[in-house]
Amino acid sequence: MKNLVGAVMFGQSGGPTSVINSSAAGVFFEALKQKNITAVYGAEHGIVGILNEKFFDISKEDKSELELLKYTPSSALGSARYKLKDADVDDSDYKRILEVFEKYNIRYFFYNGGNDSMDTCNKVSKYLQSVGYDCNVIGVPKTIDNDLYGTDHCPGYASAAKYIANTVMECNLDAKVYNFGCVCIMEIMGRNAGWLTAASALAGYKGLGPDLIYLPEVPFDVDKFVASVKNVCEKNDNKCIVCVSEGLKTAEGKYVAECAVSANDTFGHAQLGGLAQVLANIVKERLGVKVRPIELSLMQRCGAHLASKTDIEEAFNAGAFAVQSAVAGETDKMVIFEREEDGGAYRCKNVLMPLELAANTEKKVPLEWITQDGSYVSDEFVKYALPLIQGDAKAPLEDGLPRFAKLKKVYATLD
Amino acid sequence: MKNLVGAVMFGQSGGPTSVINSSAAGVFFEALKQKNITAVYGAEHGIVGILNEKFFDISKEDKSELELLKYTPSSALGSARYKLKDADVDDSDYKRILEVFEKYNIRYFFYNGGNDSMDTCNKVSKYLQSVGYDCNVIGVPKTIDNDLYGTDHCPGYASAAKYIANTVMECNLDAKVYNFGCVCIMEIMGRNAGWLTAASALAGYKGLGPDLIYLPEVPFDVDKFVASVKNVCEKNDNKCIVCVSEGLKTAEGKYVAECAVSANDTFGHAQLGGLAQVLANIVKERLGVKVRPIELSLMQRCGAHLASKTDIEEAFNAGAFAVQSAVAGETDKMVIFEREEDGGAYRCKNVLMPLELAANTEKKVPLEWITQDGSYVSDEFVKYALPLIQGDAKAPLEDGLPRFAKLKKVYATLD
Repeated sequence: MKNLVGAVMFGQSGGPTSVINSSAAGVFFEALKQKNITAVYGAEHGIVGILNEKFFDISKEDKSELELLKYTPSSALGSARYKLKDADVDDSDYKRILEVFEKYNIRYFFYNGGNDSMDTCNKVSKYLQSVGYDCNVIGVPKTIDNDLYGTDHCPGYASAAKYIANTVMECNLDAKVYNFGCVCIMEIMGRNAGWLTAASALAGYKGLGPDLIYLPEVPFDVDKFVASVKNVCEKNDNKCIVCVSEGLKTAEGKYVAECAVSANDTFGHAQLGGLAQVLANIVKERLGVKVRPIELSLMQRCGAHLASKTDIEEAFNAGAFAVQSAVAGETDKMVIFEREEDGGAYRCKNVLMPLELAANTEKKVPLEWITQDGSYVSDEFVKYALPLIQGDAKAPLEDGLPRFAKLKKVYATLD
Repeated sequence: MKNLVGAVMFGQSGGPTSVINSSAAGVFFEALKQKNITAVYGAEHGIVGILNEKFFDISKEDKSELELLKYTPSSALGSARYKLKDADVDDSDYKRILEVFEKYNIRYFFYNGGNDSMDTCNKVSKYLQSVGYDCNVIGVPKTIDNDLYGTDHCPGYASAAKYIANTVMECNLDAKVYNFGCVCIMEIMGRNAGWLTAASALAGYKGLGPDLIYLPEVPFDVDKFVASVKNVCEKNDNKCIVCVSEGLKTAEGKYVAECAVSANDTFGHAQLGGLAQVLANIVKERLGVKVRPIELSLMQRCGAHLASKTDIEEAFNAGAFAVQSAVAGETDKMVIFEREEDGGAYRCKNVLMPLELAANTEKKVPLEWITQDGSYVSDEFVKYALPLIQGDAKAPLEDGLPRFAKLKKVYATLD
């Protein structure tokens, strides 16, 4: 536990969310008021910006714009997907990071991201320790996938879940409006964990949910799926809403979305669709019903206008807590959330966990929360997720549209 | 001009919108307080419900639920796509409608829909006149496509436009976040008119718009399109956002989306994608860049959580005005909007237009509002559309999710 005096380096990494910038705001506001912190830098494109010595001087930003970061989706500093090699294989990146950290007297490093980003954060932390460079390193969790180990949930998940639940409710009303049937197949993000797709059950809790929900935790059987859709259609005038995780796999471990072979269109180009399209084609052909595939795509992770206020606040607090912890001498940790429930009221507490536990691990939806036939989730899931999506908060309107943060992004220099 | 005493029949028809139920609320609240109106019926699935003698007694509904209709997307009574034959070819449907109208003493008929629905409304109106049955008939406009003749704009358009502008802003931030490029192709509804796709320019007005916009009013040239994308990519680190109308056609009049031939996936089913997918494949293959196709699908027309308050109010007022006009003796008309601009302030006035003018006509985006190279829209469009999307209003939250109207839907009987 060392109390250090020096600059902060903060970076955002991996897929953006609706509230990752709220964690940035939490880090910035807390760091800017700490006496031991001499400068606050925001890396452009995460670790890539550090390697390229491209980072912004956050003290140059207007406080009102930093405040708007809470309601601004995507990663305001720019994100990256860059995997550091193991230091014992190739330490050139680490040497460069050390060089930059020494040059700018970086004594606090906060990295905001999911599993891969925590791997980066962990590797940097361990390298700096190995060479005896004093720098307190804290990971700030972020992922709509909600699959980080050790934490009750991840900042970013709740807002995506709220977007999904709200959108499924609205699409339910729309898709069932006619005097003829329609099978609506909604594809939701999640390669290996079904947390996001499970969020569609929140729409079901409000009476406007899907008829069937398929998560990647359970092997997907196309014939059983078609039979289940047929069963719903028979009961319900050919109206059926299905939510599927993009990462559904067959029992053989093959992605269902990749079971479509490419073909040529009339321009001579390969033609490929996503999972919803693949399943829509199957249902249409086998059941002869009208089918509409819908992919929630980027909207589910950047739909900040539907963010959960709870999520925004928790993301902000996680960033501030990371700074407070590091200033108090903590290092090599990640912030996690512990749920406290007194008499039914939901509360969430920030706690620290060793960083290496978060790196490259994955937390999946418990199998006991998935119904036995694998086509829905239990009330336990709803009980878990519902408190997370409470409260509305969004960017102020200007001309009827959101006024997102506009950062000056002044590159840091040493003069 | 006849002042009639009798019942109201109201129906919703065609594709739903975020505010079509607000027009229903306007009709219901106004009709329920008119002395000359003896009953208020809502047809289940539009004209189909009339033919089947299936309609709801609106007086049985709670006022608070009717109030929530303003914020509830999709057609609460159920919609239909049903084309009436010309009465001189086959008048059996008309005879049935007359029979039902006589049985329930329907003296007011309000039909809420777009071009096709106004065709239905017009045909019913003309038939009832031809047989001397007194019934005042008023069409209430509705279409996200904004393509009804004679009116400044259509209820439903502004909310979809607001959803599109907001979503393009958010996706812009998301798609440009990385240290590597991505061409994002966003497919927006509109088979023949580009009003909805043009709305993406509102995001551009806020600095977060697409780089290129293609409307169906201008023939689409694939080679020019690829060259334009390449040009943007070269200037902007391979980052480019394109908004396209689903109805883009080649100079030969063929839908670009249909230029993809079907192929078989490994399950042996036909594999087809939409326009965004087709264009994504072309860009990927010709330019070798990462491409993400996004289809705004049903969300753009049912995203009531992003509805325009202006739109909700105008839709409600159009419904109420239709009832007031019919009670005052007007018939065979459709409600249209006239824009009044005094000193820059936007106001919208309800006016009546002969019904036959609205039936089966289409209003397209003026060619002078499309830039000469066909890849963007002018400031004139922004000036036109911006006042329409002002103000926020949405359903109250319950458990963090929208509380939409729940109607009892009690079938009308004559006892």
